[in-house]
Amino acid sequence: MTDADIKVLFFDVFGTVVDWRSGIVRQLEAFGRDKGIEADWAEFADAWRALYHPAMRAVRKGERGWANLDELHRETLVEVLPRFGIDGPSAAEIDRLVRAWHRLDPWPDSVPGLTRLKRRFVLSTLSNGTVALLVNMARHAGLPWDAPLCSETARAYKPDPRAYLANVELLQVAPAEAMLVAAHNYDLRAAQRLGFKTAFVARPSEYGPGQTRDLAPEGEWDIVAGSMEELADRLGC
Amino acid sequence: MTDADIKVLFFDVFGTVVDWRSGIVRQLEAFGRDKGIEADWAEFADAWRALYHPAMRAVRKGERGWANLDELHRETLVEVLPRFGIDGPSAAEIDRLVRAWHRLDPWPDSVPGLTRLKRRFVLSTLSNGTVALLVNMARHAGLPWDAPLCSETARAYKPDPRAYLANVELLQVAPAEAMLVAAHNYDLRAAQRLGFKTAFVARPSEYGPGQTRDLAPEGEWDIVAGSMEELADRLGC
Repeated sequence: MTDADIKVLFFDVFGTVVDWRSGIVRQLEAFGRDKGIEADWAEFADAWRALYHPAMRAVRKGERGWANLDELHRETLVEVLPRFGIDGPSAAEIDRLVRAWHRLDPWPDSVPGLTRLKRRFVLSTLSNGTVALLVNMARHAGLPWDAPLCSETARAYKPDPRAYLANVELLQVAPAEAMLVAAHNYDLRAAQRLGFKTAFVARPSEYGPGQTRDLAPEGEWDIVAGSMEELADRLGC
Repeated sequence: MTDADIKVLFFDVFGTVVDWRSGIVRQLEAFGRDKGIEADWAEFADAWRALYHPAMRAVRKGERGWANLDELHRETLVEVLPRFGIDGPSAAEIDRLVRAWHRLDPWPDSVPGLTRLKRRFVLSTLSNGTVALLVNMARHAGLPWDAPLCSETARAYKPDPRAYLANVELLQVAPAEAMLVAAHNYDLRAAQRLGFKTAFVARPSEYGPGQTRDLAPEGEWDIVAGSMEELADRLGC
């Protein structure tokens, strides 16, 4: 790999840049306190997230029309609530929980690493989230994106090739001039097949203390790093 | 108007935020010096810009398929060059001239005004430009956008209602929660009809010393200001 060819760094966001699990658990706990509901909120967060890939898969496979991630988060939340014996949150409460995904905190190395990387590269998200989610999250967390590109600007969910190709086209660079940065091997695999450069940033606590997946690189990724700061080091920023 | 309702400020860009004419003239002059070509480059810039609205109109009216603004700028450049007796620029030279629209400088009040406004509002472009153009321009000029939304994310050119509605939908706000900031009455008129709040920022030298259009507000705009700093004052930022 020649770094000199890279013009745009695309970032997976949930898990790679922000710690979605702690953020969702914390906001579910606050909801529980407000409503006087007791539950294992970490288990709730995991159950909610477990429906994430199946929901996107149904869109990817054309089993339903386009629905953005906020819509999918709402549907899957409504599916999980009764499993935990919770019924009757108001529409405003459901909205607020769906928007919890817009208010997640970054891993400690994310903002300093991205700030260094931005000096040299265009920084874009390449997330399955929505534009509004990514804009709200960037303002909440101080993430210095140049562009909040995502499934919604491509009308396709990763790992559908269109999700990568439509967004690289919007920035007018070739796949070989783009690097995908992600904590997930499946995502890097899809991008690499299309000609993207790849960087694996390990996030061994994304799924909590018992994480079993994505603990190590499972492909020939161009860079393997332990943090965004290390990625900035490796890219000479 | 209640300012408290406004969540997103959308900005027209060419003329409203950046001084396209001086920037294009300067880059055409540099091209002329490099190639040893003499021409009235201000007249060239005006001739090139004169083809801007007709080119977009052909797309809006469905007389041709979708083509983004960089493609339209390329086609109109190729049309104007022979009128000035210039033939044979290389593909790379034409690329560079088309990309001159990605490298324009802001009016002096734009960056300080936007920086203040960003504390309170989401700031998005709502330009007929492309995503790549807006990202490159933001990096060049230091424009602190939260999102580079445009004709390309809506697949429609202003004043087509879809150009406004698709982008307001991407940010998940109602038109009444959005304000369009523009130096052009036609743009504000189209947005206001759809329920947007409107702010006219006068740019009396956008078209050079002989400007005759858009010298004054021609509608009941919510705010009329002389600069982005004045707009920030008026919005309490």
